[in-house]
Amino acid sequence: MSTFLVTGAAGFIGGAMAKKLIDQGHKVVTIDNLSTGYREAIPEGVEFYKGDCQDYSLINKLEKYSFGAIFHIAGQSSGEISYDDPVYDLQTNAQSTLLLLKLALKTNCKKFIYASTMSVYGAKEDRLIAEDELLEPKSFYGVGKIASEQYMRIYQDYGITSTALRLFNIYGPGQNLKNFRQGMVSIFVAQAVYNEHIHVKGSADRFRDFVNVDDAVDAFIAAYERESNHYLDVNISTAQKTTVKQLIRLIQENIPYDVTTEFKGSTSGDIFGIVGDNSKAFKTLNWKPRIKLDEGLKEMIDWALKLKTQKVK
Amino acid sequence: MSTFLVTGAAGFIGGAMAKKLIDQGHKVVTIDNLSTGYREAIPEGVEFYKGDCQDYSLINKLEKYSFGAIFHIAGQSSGEISYDDPVYDLQTNAQSTLLLLKLALKTNCKKFIYASTMSVYGAKEDRLIAEDELLEPKSFYGVGKIASEQYMRIYQDYGITSTALRLFNIYGPGQNLKNFRQGMVSIFVAQAVYNEHIHVKGSADRFRDFVNVDDAVDAFIAAYERESNHYLDVNISTAQKTTVKQLIRLIQENIPYDVTTEFKGSTSGDIFGIVGDNSKAFKTLNWKPRIKLDEGLKEMIDWALKLKTQKVK
Repeated sequence: MSTFLVTGAAGFIGGAMAKKLIDQGHKVVTIDNLSTGYREAIPEGVEFYKGDCQDYSLINKLEKYSFGAIFHIAGQSSGEISYDDPVYDLQTNAQSTLLLLKLALKTNCKKFIYASTMSVYGAKEDRLIAEDELLEPKSFYGVGKIASEQYMRIYQDYGITSTALRLFNIYGPGQNLKNFRQGMVSIFVAQAVYNEHIHVKGSADRFRDFVNVDDAVDAFIAAYERESNHYLDVNISTAQKTTVKQLIRLIQENIPYDVTTEFKGSTSGDIFGIVGDNSKAFKTLNWKPRIKLDEGLKEMIDWALKLKTQKVK
Repeated sequence: MSTFLVTGAAGFIGGAMAKKLIDQGHKVVTIDNLSTGYREAIPEGVEFYKGDCQDYSLINKLEKYSFGAIFHIAGQSSGEISYDDPVYDLQTNAQSTLLLLKLALKTNCKKFIYASTMSVYGAKEDRLIAEDELLEPKSFYGVGKIASEQYMRIYQDYGITSTALRLFNIYGPGQNLKNFRQGMVSIFVAQAVYNEHIHVKGSADRFRDFVNVDDAVDAFIAAYERESNHYLDVNISTAQKTTVKQLIRLIQENIPYDVTTEFKGSTSGDIFGIVGDNSKAFKTLNWKPRIKLDEGLKEMIDWALKLKTQKVK
């Protein structure tokens, strides 16, 4: 049994990650500012500190622990929202990483796993994007994530082995259905389930690479277990292209009533499409996605429908 | 006559830049926190605001101006010192840029020229380094500079044309001779002039690409004058390799008494050597360096010797 720090356990990916570790019999500590997550979403048994990861005084309180690894997942996670306050975005996404790396160094924690993002790449042509691609983020969000990756690379000289998982579009049960500015799948599923109408901001031909949250959690575990002293950045992607049109059709097929669609407006910092080469993930982490999009979506929609029924009762 | 904002005019490069613009008959406003610069070093005629460029309230005070361009030169500028407080480094070097870009947008200022650095590249082999090289900074300083470059690239979508000048080792009269942690040339010249003894932290075979401050100022002017709507990052370098050994010999040759040398210790975040390809600067800015190192060094040492005599009197 080890003790792990999982930041952002009130959120979608952090929550799933914390639950996995708790289920494996480990002790989990989390920091979450509950800005988008909910107190009730934190899995049972997790020790909770409320606050920001960019807050020195809070991070200092964690010096009493001896973590087997730090999974840094907290942080503002929407390209669109990063336009509201780029300075806050820099603090939540880059300053936080600096403080947590410093904590790792102080407490002799040797492993650091980070939720980075496909947003570091920016707008690219329609082809598989590998990790050595030139980084030209289109959002402030992507800039802070790159800075974090660079910090982790520097800290390898101090004996901390970091992995930056460049997560593509993560979806699945547990995703926030109330935030209509974050997560393409959750936005569309929530609209379909609650409004019977999907409002798409942007073209139907845009495309993404959708990764199930359970597969993403497996990648975090694989990153923790890998044996190396070197910093690694790696795509967590399926290498499968799905257009917005295809996604909406899949959602419609799994909803037991008619769902209308409407295309209007656009989104700041949005990219037309990106699909990630995942051969490096297989090579370095022995990781590949297991869950097919249609199965994963079905499970997610069933969960969302159930949630709706429970709330109506 | 235009009005320009030159941040960091109490510093070495900012001061030279402000003086150039004043000499051309323009109005210059500056922000400087005097953390390493001196009030007296700010050229006469420059309107001075004391404080940090990452301070919202200070930047807001500048909204009354209509700047022809913002030259953002302020910021902690040593790789070594960035290890003392990486969070401060991020704020001074990246958050400041965000606030100034926002100011440019608000005040309809279309041109933004930034003092970036060769430190964005990190440790590379001994060959000419061009701008499309993979960025792997070895210091926290380099990370903040990359973030700033990315912000400028994003702001081109808002109609602000930015240029990131990746400055190599800038030297010349006016460089701070009291800061022994910043500027290879000024450290050695100061030691030679004041102590008759140079203490080198690192190998004599390390090498750099030394650019005279007057040439650097010309590059800032050329960046301001260029006609394009696109973000540009560009090396300001001589493409000439000079080893530490050669540099010390040149200094010794220009000092009218014996200067001893000692090699001991090392420097955090130091790189072995880097020389910049400057063909892009010639192509995009029609810029090339005019001042040869031996001439520039002679002028700088004469200035330093004179300064010493004046102080002794």
